[in-house]
Amino acid sequence: MEPSPLLQQIEFIKEVDKLKYILRKTKLFNSDRAENDAEHSWHLALMALILVEHANAELDLLKVLKMLLIHDIVEIDAGDTFIYNTQKSHQNTVEERAAAHRIFGLLPLPQARELIAIWEEFEAGKTPEAQFARAMDRLEPLLQNTSNNGGTWNEFGVNYETVYAKKQVIQHGSATIWNYAEQLLNESVEKGILKK
Amino acid sequence: MEPSPLLQQIEFIKEVDKLKYILRKTKLFNSDRAENDAEHSWHLALMALILVEHANAELDLLKVLKMLLIHDIVEIDAGDTFIYNTQKSHQNTVEERAAAHRIFGLLPLPQARELIAIWEEFEAGKTPEAQFARAMDRLEPLLQNTSNNGGTWNEFGVNYETVYAKKQVIQHGSATIWNYAEQLLNESVEKGILKK
Repeated sequence: MEPSPLLQQIEFIKEVDKLKYILRKTKLFNSDRAENDAEHSWHLALMALILVEHANAELDLLKVLKMLLIHDIVEIDAGDTFIYNTQKSHQNTVEERAAAHRIFGLLPLPQARELIAIWEEFEAGKTPEAQFARAMDRLEPLLQNTSNNGGTWNEFGVNYETVYAKKQVIQHGSATIWNYAEQLLNESVEKGILKK
Repeated sequence: MEPSPLLQQIEFIKEVDKLKYILRKTKLFNSDRAENDAEHSWHLALMALILVEHANAELDLLKVLKMLLIHDIVEIDAGDTFIYNTQKSHQNTVEERAAAHRIFGLLPLPQARELIAIWEEFEAGKTPEAQFARAMDRLEPLLQNTSNNGGTWNEFGVNYETVYAKKQVIQHGSATIWNYAEQLLNESVEKGILKK
């Protein structure tokens, strides 16, 4: 017999606890303690809620929050891929898609389908909701690295040009926040914590 | 000169990073590692999103998610109060209200007012949104303790009657989830991980 929808949902809720063990390269603010994916997802969702007035387009905030709460769940199976890793691309790997189907697949089918679609929408980055959510995902480590004297930029020898190229994604979500992010990058160069 | 709304919001975003250091008594699933408030808030928001179909009343899911993302932020100043602490009540202490005003007060005034109102609504537990959010806040440690052979119930010698009284809050949010929670409590007694 198929378990009830509620029991399937409880299994999913237990499984995603594992996101709390997936460590990112980026450190907490003013800290050398690595951030985990669950903390990171909470912070991005809260940032979206606080910063939504700066979005370029009218958007469905509820969908943005759903995206951010689930966006890294695939990393339970696929692991965190560092954004400046030159060997392995983060997006839409076969591994990540298989993870999405396994983990969201624990849920009742209509719900699994909805969340896989939202995750795919986030990954594609084409809709206003996905663009704003992705802007949050780029902004948080920028704030963290500037608070940590360059943080992962220095740790992994990433230069201004590479960081700038990655951070440009922010402008598709919010011109206002991008303007602020560009200032932060310039100030980081002036302070010597980001090398040209 | 007053800083711009965006700069005020960025200050708030940096400040709330401290929630990642506030440890709860309850441990992660099948684990002896304490959960922090940021991870906890993420998990509750995700649970609400997954379980909303079981709510007793039609509700505004966006408001529930806002509540859960911010509900523990006051603990940055006030600390985590253990639910079975008999010396100190958790709710609506002078300390928590002062914390809400200090921390949300970093935001532009209309936004600070909105979030303080949402936090007060959660604490009061009267609206369908607050009742469902509070059900999530009671359900997560129940799932964690049953996965940990009684977890904090055994660690702090809390009996069935005390746990049952605290968990009853769940029924105001969802009769279906309360039915499941009651089963879990009975099974815990049968397994000997919760004492009558």
